[in-house]
Amino acid sequence: MSDYVNKIINQAKQSSYLLAQLTTRQKNNALKNMSKAIMDNREFIIKENEKDIKKAVKNNLKANLIDRLKLTDKRLKEMSVSLKEVSFLPDPVGKVISDYQKSNGIRIKKVRVPLGVVLIVYEARPNVTADCAGLLFKTSNVGILRGGRNAVCSNKAIGLVLKKALKLSGINFPVFFVVEKTDRKIIHELLKADEYIDLVIPRGGESLIRTVVENSRIPVIKHYKGVCHIFVDKSANIRKALKICINAKTQRPSVCNAAETILVHKEIAREFIPALMKEFDSSGVIVRACNQARKIIPQAEKATEEDWFAEYLDLIVAIKIVSNIKAAVKHINTYGSHHTDTIITENKDNAKTFTREIDSACCFVNISTRFSDGFQFGLGAEIGISTDKLHARGPMGLEELTTYKWVATGNGQVRD
Amino acid sequence: MSDYVNKIINQAKQSSYLLAQLTTRQKNNALKNMSKAIMDNREFIIKENEKDIKKAVKNNLKANLIDRLKLTDKRLKEMSVSLKEVSFLPDPVGKVISDYQKSNGIRIKKVRVPLGVVLIVYEARPNVTADCAGLLFKTSNVGILRGGRNAVCSNKAIGLVLKKALKLSGINFPVFFVVEKTDRKIIHELLKADEYIDLVIPRGGESLIRTVVENSRIPVIKHYKGVCHIFVDKSANIRKALKICINAKTQRPSVCNAAETILVHKEIAREFIPALMKEFDSSGVIVRACNQARKIIPQAEKATEEDWFAEYLDLIVAIKIVSNIKAAVKHINTYGSHHTDTIITENKDNAKTFTREIDSACCFVNISTRFSDGFQFGLGAEIGISTDKLHARGPMGLEELTTYKWVATGNGQVRD
Repeated sequence: MSDYVNKIINQAKQSSYLLAQLTTRQKNNALKNMSKAIMDNREFIIKENEKDIKKAVKNNLKANLIDRLKLTDKRLKEMSVSLKEVSFLPDPVGKVISDYQKSNGIRIKKVRVPLGVVLIVYEARPNVTADCAGLLFKTSNVGILRGGRNAVCSNKAIGLVLKKALKLSGINFPVFFVVEKTDRKIIHELLKADEYIDLVIPRGGESLIRTVVENSRIPVIKHYKGVCHIFVDKSANIRKALKICINAKTQRPSVCNAAETILVHKEIAREFIPALMKEFDSSGVIVRACNQARKIIPQAEKATEEDWFAEYLDLIVAIKIVSNIKAAVKHINTYGSHHTDTIITENKDNAKTFTREIDSACCFVNISTRFSDGFQFGLGAEIGISTDKLHARGPMGLEELTTYKWVATGNGQVRD
Repeated sequence: MSDYVNKIINQAKQSSYLLAQLTTRQKNNALKNMSKAIMDNREFIIKENEKDIKKAVKNNLKANLIDRLKLTDKRLKEMSVSLKEVSFLPDPVGKVISDYQKSNGIRIKKVRVPLGVVLIVYEARPNVTADCAGLLFKTSNVGILRGGRNAVCSNKAIGLVLKKALKLSGINFPVFFVVEKTDRKIIHELLKADEYIDLVIPRGGESLIRTVVENSRIPVIKHYKGVCHIFVDKSANIRKALKICINAKTQRPSVCNAAETILVHKEIAREFIPALMKEFDSSGVIVRACNQARKIIPQAEKATEEDWFAEYLDLIVAIKIVSNIKAAVKHINTYGSHHTDTIITENKDNAKTFTREIDSACCFVNISTRFSDGFQFGLGAEIGISTDKLHARGPMGLEELTTYKWVATGNGQVRD
């Protein structure tokens, strides 16, 4: 193992014990100072960000990636506000999950505690540096933040500013580490350090996530793609169905909880699909339809097998006619990504069947897939939307960044 | 991928959808039939077990491993009783974890659901086959049970008997699979099948667990070794401390929650250690002590650095004098396995410091480490004691064999 990684993981582990002892008040005070520091140092951060941008332009990075990389006054303001908001959220650390006494007199408490050290692997989006530093600090976890190599100057600058604010708040040990060496060797070493790092969260595209999963010895919580479905049942209210399909596809097509495939019950298809096509046309959405649907809307493109697996993240949608709810469930469980799926129906039994049989983190009835979101769920914050089943499923808030320990107290009890 | 594995994982996935739909009553009825079937077919099972034993003797398997492998009437009775007891436990599947309405009218429920398909990797202990089949079935999870190669005949026989009982109970699809091909290739293929298998639980020694962790793409919950400590604080009640140390070390030394190292505060060492040595002597426990402790008990063996990491699982104990509670905490967090650690103290502040700063699944005050156990905690059952922090920590019962989904219902709501 390189000295570089060895030093980070050892310091991180040591810090995790100190960080676990901070009070909520100390943490909230520091978060407010971190929030302020982002605004106070925005010129410095933007200057450093410009170095990344210049290099990215020189390296012919795609325009949408450069857009994500770019820090503006508005984005810095958002980062700052977000840190402040985290300071107002309840602290999950120390929360008693259960508390009971056994007949032998032993009192057992299950108490929330930090995970310890969390590695975040992400792409060249410098706002993630501040967001994750804040969420991990609030939950008393030490962060190892490994962002994309195109954002190194920005991430270093944000890290520097936040670290100064932490020091001013009286916190004299490192609570997060910005990994500045972004070569593959370093990340592979980190992913093997399962005795020092408790959790890895990859945030980014599918290939980044696969690389992490295939190389990690540390538990990973995946935020895979969102191939979200809407199933328009035969009893659907057409007006609601149209409104939800349009919202789920077009309100923000680039995010994981946007809808990608619409399944339509055959008995409502002749009525619903032409109306939907008209709406999509006027919103500039490209429609790819199954053969049966193309008999109704021949102007649609032909969908292939790949379309059913596709996460477009764009103004493209796949439409398929299914013969009943069972076929809809089977399609979703086969082709979906177990993220978020909605049924539009006025039939309560079908709603129940759907939410029971769909194997996804979020099973919705008569609402837009776009509601699959930590803020919308009232979690206060969101580190991502887990498509895993272990530990955290669906929108992942502060509580999911903690674990628990069992504290049992007695008076000399022994086992027979 | 081999046809053999391909068939198992595909059937397992398909079954998982059917199994999720069974009612609690159907499951409990089948569990009672499974329990009865073990007793009704004990001659057959014992005959098959004898084939394994014969082969094991021929292959010069160690006596303690043969003992673990051997099925007797008593052991079959235990397996049978255990299946019946599982039928009486509350079913976690379908339990509503939270249920609330947002101001926009959307009602959000967080509901417990099965994990799906769970792979158990274990050694040549045929009782694990019945135990895991029962616990996984109760929680509506499909089990893939890969036991040690020395127990193949026994595992097949138990599987056959249980499957017949399931069929008689009206369950016409496979709910668990006994992996009969035990070559390395097969297990490696299973561990890569992360699209079919949701969780792996390795049950066995350290090398088995390491192999699983290093080769798995599927999330693993580890039940690593138990290097459990007792810290005898300077304010300890000597009588309680002696009783707990003896119980934790000698009541059942071969299990993971037995104590391995005793740390003694220097200010109580001259009084406590000779008394402890005397007790250990009369219980046949070999003592390995640090240099400082050997000044008090020169008859003790000398402890080396390896002793602090050791899980003896035997009548051997390591004793070390520490200068204060901080040093005790540091020793435990450094050398321990984050399983179970106890402080013996009459000082409430020290009890608090200990339970807060020890980074272990179970932090105890004035009780034996032997209480770290799902049944003792009132969980009703135990699939193991997790030394991991994700999803399940410490004693792992039925609830920890489930995940949750978010079910949100509205009336046409869309996002602004």
